[in-house]
Amino acid sequence: MTKTPISRFPVPEIADLPEDLRERFLAVQEKAGFVPNVFLTLSHRPDECRAFFAYHDALMEKKEGLTKAEREMIVVATSNANQCQYCVVAHGAILRVRAKDPLIADQVAVNYRKADITARQKAMLDFAMKVCDRAYEVGEEDIATLTGHGFSEEDIWDIGAITAFFGMSNRLANLTSMKPNPEFYSMGR
Amino acid sequence: MTKTPISRFPVPEIADLPEDLRERFLAVQEKAGFVPNVFLTLSHRPDECRAFFAYHDALMEKKEGLTKAEREMIVVATSNANQCQYCVVAHGAILRVRAKDPLIADQVAVNYRKADITARQKAMLDFAMKVCDRAYEVGEEDIATLTGHGFSEEDIWDIGAITAFFGMSNRLANLTSMKPNPEFYSMGR
Amino acid sequence: MTKTPISRFPVPEIADLPEDLRERFLAVQEKAGFVPNVFLTLSHRPDECRAFFAYHDALMEKKEGLTKAEREMIVVATSNANQCQYCVVAHGAILRVRAKDPLIADQVAVNYRKADITARQKAMLDFAMKVCDRAYEVGEEDIATLTGHGFSEEDIWDIGAITAFFGMSNRLANLTSMKPNPEFYSMGR
Amino acid sequence: MTKTPISRFPVPEIADLPEDLRERFLAVQEKAGFVPNVFLTLSHRPDECRAFFAYHDALMEKKEGLTKAEREMIVVATSNANQCQYCVVAHGAILRVRAKDPLIADQVAVNYRKADITARQKAMLDFAMKVCDRAYEVGEEDIATLTGHGFSEEDIWDIGAITAFFGMSNRLANLTSMKPNPEFYSMGR
Amino acid sequence: MTKTPISRFPVPEIADLPEDLRERFLAVQEKAGFVPNVFLTLSHRPDECRAFFAYHDALMEKKEGLTKAEREMIVVATSNANQCQYCVVAHGAILRVRAKDPLIADQVAVNYRKADITARQKAMLDFAMKVCDRAYEVGEEDIATLTGHGFSEEDIWDIGAITAFFGMSNRLANLTSMKPNPEFYSMGR
Amino acid sequence: MTKTPISRFPVPEIADLPEDLRERFLAVQEKAGFVPNVFLTLSHRPDECRAFFAYHDALMEKKEGLTKAEREMIVVATSNANQCQYCVVAHGAILRVRAKDPLIADQVAVNYRKADITARQKAMLDFAMKVCDRAYEVGEEDIATLTGHGFSEEDIWDIGAITAFFGMSNRLANLTSMKPNPEFYSMGR
Repeated sequence: MTKTPISRFPVPEIADLPEDLRERFLAVQEKAGFVPNVFLTLSHRPDECRAFFAYHDALMEKKEGLTKAEREMIVVATSNANQCQYCVVAHGAILRVRAKDPLIADQVAVNYRKADITARQKAMLDFAMKVCDRAYEVGEEDIATLTGHGFSEEDIWDIGAITAFFGMSNRLANLTSMKPNPEFYSMGR
Repeated sequence: MTKTPISRFPVPEIADLPEDLRERFLAVQEKAGFVPNVFLTLSHRPDECRAFFAYHDALMEKKEGLTKAEREMIVVATSNANQCQYCVVAHGAILRVRAKDPLIADQVAVNYRKADITARQKAMLDFAMKVCDRAYEVGEEDIATLTGHGFSEEDIWDIGAITAFFGMSNRLANLTSMKPNPEFYSMGR
Repeated sequence: MTKTPISRFPVPEIADLPEDLRERFLAVQEKAGFVPNVFLTLSHRPDECRAFFAYHDALMEKKEGLTKAEREMIVVATSNANQCQYCVVAHGAILRVRAKDPLIADQVAVNYRKADITARQKAMLDFAMKVCDRAYEVGEEDIATLTGHGFSEEDIWDIGAITAFFGMSNRLANLTSMKPNPEFYSMGR
Repeated sequence: MTKTPISRFPVPEIADLPEDLRERFLAVQEKAGFVPNVFLTLSHRPDECRAFFAYHDALMEKKEGLTKAEREMIVVATSNANQCQYCVVAHGAILRVRAKDPLIADQVAVNYRKADITARQKAMLDFAMKVCDRAYEVGEEDIATLTGHGFSEEDIWDIGAITAFFGMSNRLANLTSMKPNPEFYSMGR
Repeated sequence: MTKTPISRFPVPEIADLPEDLRERFLAVQEKAGFVPNVFLTLSHRPDECRAFFAYHDALMEKKEGLTKAEREMIVVATSNANQCQYCVVAHGAILRVRAKDPLIADQVAVNYRKADITARQKAMLDFAMKVCDRAYEVGEEDIATLTGHGFSEEDIWDIGAITAFFGMSNRLANLTSMKPNPEFYSMGR
Repeated sequence: MTKTPISRFPVPEIADLPEDLRERFLAVQEKAGFVPNVFLTLSHRPDECRAFFAYHDALMEKKEGLTKAEREMIVVATSNANQCQYCVVAHGAILRVRAKDPLIADQVAVNYRKADITARQKAMLDFAMKVCDRAYEVGEEDIATLTGHGFSEEDIWDIGAITAFFGMSNRLANLTSMKPNPEFYSMGR
């Protein structure tokens, strides 16, 4: 077999990108040691790329409420449900790093119900899976369940919005046949 | 029964919004005669709101390739599959206006396979439904089918990305229990 | 594209129909201003056509119990679940007329859980959706839920039987590729 | 456990039925040796009952086209897919009698793809299952497949309409919790 | 049509089998009057065949806890859910014999919720169906439900393990296109 | 949260096991450095345990036909489809070791269609997924597809039988809430 490319669509050279994207990508490279393929793949469409990362950061880098590790748990669980290889591998790595736990990502990806997480986190992921699979059935009883676990209204928005955002991201990754960078697989293990 | 509010979450007053959003909303109101509830609902989170509409406009206001009516067909078909009342009603209205056809939106929403559209448009919606329901199975044979109908690589990105974006939007609307403005129901009929 | 015919199967001329059907169709035409295509499509098989409308009227024109608008809500919700374009469009029109509400049909079709209807009507539609999708799981606990909302035994039969009848009707309409008359789309708006 | 009644709803005494139904039921009893419970259960609603059997007979007693055994195969396959105990047991009996084959009904009920039937009959049941599960996807390519197996346009209507009718019947039987008469289980074995 | 063979794969002659299998098969033949095709089909792979029957007997011939008829109920219900013709027909026969009830197998196969069985047995089959369809969701609340019906921890293992074993067996039978012996169809009726 | 135990059911001490199992477990421990929890969990039922491993080894340790890495690919892909945490983690480790590829297991688990494997291996996994999800639809056209990729009749049995066996194993692991040993997570990376 031949190694598949990182995207089914054309991928620009970093040098050819608009300046704001180039700077952003180089800053990521400086920090992480590599440019995650999601940046390269989406930069084929600079306006969409900017909006994507603005949205991503608003949801994932938020300081209040859910911890960053909890936000990544939502990503990993819903991305495996959507069979998105890129997001499970890349965000699995980030989850391991943020939770400082080398086992958590594989547990949450395959079956979060059996993961070593709290009952509150399971309720969070139950709700995420409902938004992922049957958002049309979300109702007041779901909100009440989450409130009963101590989640605030803002937390509930976050859980649902992260799931919705990665519902988009997972479909984009499968559409473009986006390939995870090899660096992600072993990160944080 | 009591009329339900436009969102399950707090909705800011337009007067209290950051200036850029307030100006944008007032411009829409000036043009359309009302502010669609998606603006009001999402403005609870200004950063996410800005990213949402930047992304939306990049995909839906694009001039090349798919027509604007075709873009709305994708929204309507996938939003009904996701049982998103807001998006079917609001984008159904926009589709009627853009296609200058009072019947098209209801046809496409319920079963696009029976709609008065071209074979090429049916292939476009078949692909959108696959991205909507089973993006993980998208493969080269799907690309070949679309290419055979004369779609370019950029068109294919558009079809898939619009479906993915409304996969997010539909989930947000169901999460927030977003209510369509009454004006949409009869627009373009 | 060419406009598709009203049925995939042969459609008789009204003049050639057996007298009882011809009279019935002309009476409908007199009252409604047009002959709904379901009459024309099914009259290809006069005996089945007679039984269909006898059954339909026994369920939909009944005076006691559920209101006529409630009966149409059941039709609209289950017909969208079955992706039946003819029934959503035609019975959506009838629902708007009978409920004297121009918005109700689109709300109930796409996601009745978000419609401006009573909790009792939502319970009615929850049960209809269960009969539509998983009738084999209907049990005493469903009956108890409905009774708790004040539905009588006869109401429960009606809800289930209307859902079952349109389970047939939706499949016939998709089998024959039955096309809604254009008049239905704007009726009652 | 207590033996369950034949219906969840009230069942009239034969003596109390309208005369036409009473005569019909007694004629069946004379011929079969017992009154199938579907008659008793549905007679709770005489008008619906008359329409049901008029429709049933128009589809199942037709002389041209599909054989009577083939019509029963459709009923048995779709009724098991719908998990309708009454229809699988009762029509399984009729299928054994009409096909003069004691094994055919159990084979067709569980997995018709492995039954001792012709390739043409398998194509017939493939189509029936599509109408049963995804009628909204029925298209010209399905018609062409059936035509390629020698089915006429009228045969295709019959296959689809029988499936649709039993889609209703299966839901009514599960709604009413209709119980098969013990006589059916061993008939034709 | 031609009668299909008992397996899609080569079937050894009994005379050519390893001695332990040949003796086992002949003992079954002596007792039952015929050799069930599952023995012949699986003997194509003697090691797998030995393991299969060792496992089968450990689960199905156990004396404590669930009755033998209850074990067969689990097999029949899950095998119909998996559309396994061989197992429904063969184990339906064994169920009739072990329950001394000619009607039970057809009832349990098509819709156990309507079968003449106890509430405890329905709970047993509800759990079996969950293990069959969504084992990943099995949790402490399911165990508690079964315990509430008087099932011991060992009973719960048995219910789950029998369902899991026939999950394998049903797939093997469909893989090999295994054909039930005609003797099974009428046994115990 | 508290660390969950390795099984929901009682787990014997190795010292208390029947001699043959104890020797086997100690041999595994000697070689691997630890006893995989599947041994400990299943040894609660020694006869079932023996049959399980005899079956497992007959399918997974076979020398001819599929490579050992290919056999593990089947396990990993179907175990993620069945959301079996134990099998994805444990057999993911074995796949990495046997394929001498640290990335392959995560790729195959999440979406084998995007994995760096050959077209022949994708066809193998397509068939495994069909046996996993819809074995009842397996037919001659599937066999022909595999034959076209160079698989022998014995290979096809192996693919299907491994899938069927892990269909059982995945359900047992979810039933018992079996926990993967921590050693597996990083093995072969």
